[in-house]
Amino acid sequence: MVSEERLQGEESKVAGLESNGGSMSGGLVGVARQRRRKEVVELFLRLMCMGCSIVAVSLMVTAKEATNVSIYGFNFPINSKWSFSQSYQYVVGVSAAVAAHSLLQLLIGTSRFVMKSSVIPSRKYAWLLFAGDQAFAYALVSAGSAASGVTNLNRTGIRHTALPNFCKPLHKFCDHVAISIAFTFTSCFLLAISAVQDVIWLSQHS
Amino acid sequence: MVSEERLQGEESKVAGLESNGGSMSGGLVGVARQRRRKEVVELFLRLMCMGCSIVAVSLMVTAKEATNVSIYGFNFPINSKWSFSQSYQYVVGVSAAVAAHSLLQLLIGTSRFVMKSSVIPSRKYAWLLFAGDQAFAYALVSAGSAASGVTNLNRTGIRHTALPNFCKPLHKFCDHVAISIAFTFTSCFLLAISAVQDVIWLSQHS
Repeated sequence: MVSEERLQGEESKVAGLESNGGSMSGGLVGVARQRRRKEVVELFLRLMCMGCSIVAVSLMVTAKEATNVSIYGFNFPINSKWSFSQSYQYVVGVSAAVAAHSLLQLLIGTSRFVMKSSVIPSRKYAWLLFAGDQAFAYALVSAGSAASGVTNLNRTGIRHTALPNFCKPLHKFCDHVAISIAFTFTSCFLLAISAVQDVIWLSQHS
Repeated sequence: MVSEERLQGEESKVAGLESNGGSMSGGLVGVARQRRRKEVVELFLRLMCMGCSIVAVSLMVTAKEATNVSIYGFNFPINSKWSFSQSYQYVVGVSAAVAAHSLLQLLIGTSRFVMKSSVIPSRKYAWLLFAGDQAFAYALVSAGSAASGVTNLNRTGIRHTALPNFCKPLHKFCDHVAISIAFTFTSCFLLAISAVQDVIWLSQHS
């Protein structure tokens, strides 16, 4: 009896809201729909970022090539592998960390989204997300730049001495590394957008 | 007559404010003082950032050394200069741009501070500052990492071939470059703090 009465009371309340403040509740529904649309974009960005990081890691890890080069008439065996360069190791480490971070945020965000609660529940969480996104974006820029500095050196040769261009005999290796670096920068760009979205959230919920 | 009456009216208003809302106006003065203290910190950060960038540029530009190295009994002349490496050119360009940006913001901010108006006048300006600080911070991380990737290669030699360690004969050159890169990263760190301060401002003034 009690529960039925309560139900009826709530139904009449809802009816009253709809009749009296129809436009207001319509506005609220619109705001909620807009919020959910923004959250879908955020989660999609995280997914893209994770994808780019995984592609960057897998391309870098598979970058190895062995070939023979003739310099001044002598045949030298050249063996290139990503793990020979600290910069390439750095790219793999940072990209893997970013993939893990993105996966974690994607899982937390999706579960919150499915439960129809806000993806960013509090200001503290928004600051945490901002800090994480910023730190990982800086790390990715750093890794990508260090690796591309080294790759550029390989491509053009070093001007101190007359070193041959490594990328002519090792073009498969260099292509792998270059595409991996491109995906690293893309991933960083997506993270930077995520950071800006965190700032927009913070500036709107003070 | 009219102006005197108006003055008296305003005086009585002020007296009323002090007697009735003395604690409130005291609180307002406290808030204003706190704001100005924060602004001093911001301007000091800009000054530090400008200083670090200028030191980084001047150290990099003066990095050159010529020496002789004996490899396998032969004497080779080695001539090192910052402009031989694209990464070092990149550091000089970005650091100079950051110094200019910091100087501009320092001048604008100081003139506003001296006129006792708010250093950040509007939300649009805060977003502009945030965007600038972010972009320059990313550029500095990128330049510093690219340069340190190349320097690290010079220091350890390249593992592809048995190249001699460049930094043994050219230690003055390498030291200049290393300290310049350290100042580049310091400058980047200060810019990142400025960006976070912009976000705090945005999150408090919505």
